[in-house]
Amino acid sequence: MHKIFGDMLSGNCYKIKLLMQFLNIEHEWIHINILAQETHTEEFMQMNPNARIPVVELEKGKYLWESNAILHYFAEGSEFLPTEKYARAKVLQWQFFEQYSHEPYIATARYINKYLGLPQDREAEYHGKQVGGHKALFVMEQHLAENTFFLGNQATVADISLYAYTHVANEGGFDLSTYINIQRWFRDFERIPGYLKMARENA
Amino acid sequence: MHKIFGDMLSGNCYKIKLLMQFLNIEHEWIHINILAQETHTEEFMQMNPNARIPVVELEKGKYLWESNAILHYFAEGSEFLPTEKYARAKVLQWQFFEQYSHEPYIATARYINKYLGLPQDREAEYHGKQVGGHKALFVMEQHLAENTFFLGNQATVADISLYAYTHVANEGGFDLSTYINIQRWFRDFERIPGYLKMARENA
Repeated sequence: MHKIFGDMLSGNCYKIKLLMQFLNIEHEWIHINILAQETHTEEFMQMNPNARIPVVELEKGKYLWESNAILHYFAEGSEFLPTEKYARAKVLQWQFFEQYSHEPYIATARYINKYLGLPQDREAEYHGKQVGGHKALFVMEQHLAENTFFLGNQATVADISLYAYTHVANEGGFDLSTYINIQRWFRDFERIPGYLKMARENA
Repeated sequence: MHKIFGDMLSGNCYKIKLLMQFLNIEHEWIHINILAQETHTEEFMQMNPNARIPVVELEKGKYLWESNAILHYFAEGSEFLPTEKYARAKVLQWQFFEQYSHEPYIATARYINKYLGLPQDREAEYHGKQVGGHKALFVMEQHLAENTFFLGNQATVADISLYAYTHVANEGGFDLSTYINIQRWFRDFERIPGYLKMARENA
């Protein structure tokens, strides 16, 4: 059985959990405590030398890391990953947008606030994340005015990638009340069979 | 003919140019001056609402952005993109690593230094980029000790993505002299037929 090393409160890990749910893929979830530096042990860094979660062990010695790469691996052949070349590239376009223009603002602001309790020495950084975060949200809001999901009528791994941190952006100080298309997209996304809410704390 | 909107000095744009060279794909290159805010015109933002280069116009009204997504589109069916599922996911793993753990440090330090001339108000940020940049370089150095290219014996788009900014990391203040495996990889990469040096200035 696949082993997934992650933290249920991390959006990057939650992406994997969502796809596993949607596709009903059996797996074993192994909790990794990032604040306790469990990604920096020698054993963990054998799996991912970049010392980040999530990591998937496909079989002993065969690992995959980077949340969006893991989504592609498991979504291949399913309705969550189109086969047509341009559509596939558009899925990737939105996922690279997520990792470069969205996650570093929205997820990092949330991390500083929720995981670290907004310590004084990171307040400036936290506030500095707001502009970039809203810029990314605005790009999404515009696109979702004319599209049910990011690629049209069918949800793909691009939606999973973007949903993970967007739906908890409020925990990073982002007020989503004026983003009406994003909120409509949340509702459509949450109706996908198998949808599971993000954990609010590690059990 | 495909139109590519980019800047020859940008590593993200150079990635596309390299693949076009390797695969001998005809294209028209349209220079975009980022310092003159040419990515923020209404016309440009119709192509890419995220206001970044590179952008490819595949045909009128059909655009693709995000450098690594563009590489996938054009590499499909070539030796630069494997067909086997795990290998494809590994290519993506290294490309997401590049956009999240490498580019924001190495390319941004270079941008502050080379494009902006290291202004005093960004000096702290510039110096702050060094630790993250070396961390990414170390992950690469380790991996390349046992692999000719990132996926083994055949160069893929993962190598193109990582080569683009790594080989000019010195322009961001990164001394590569101790990274002997990275330097060996540079030499192997530069022997790929069609290889073109990065432009040193816009003609």
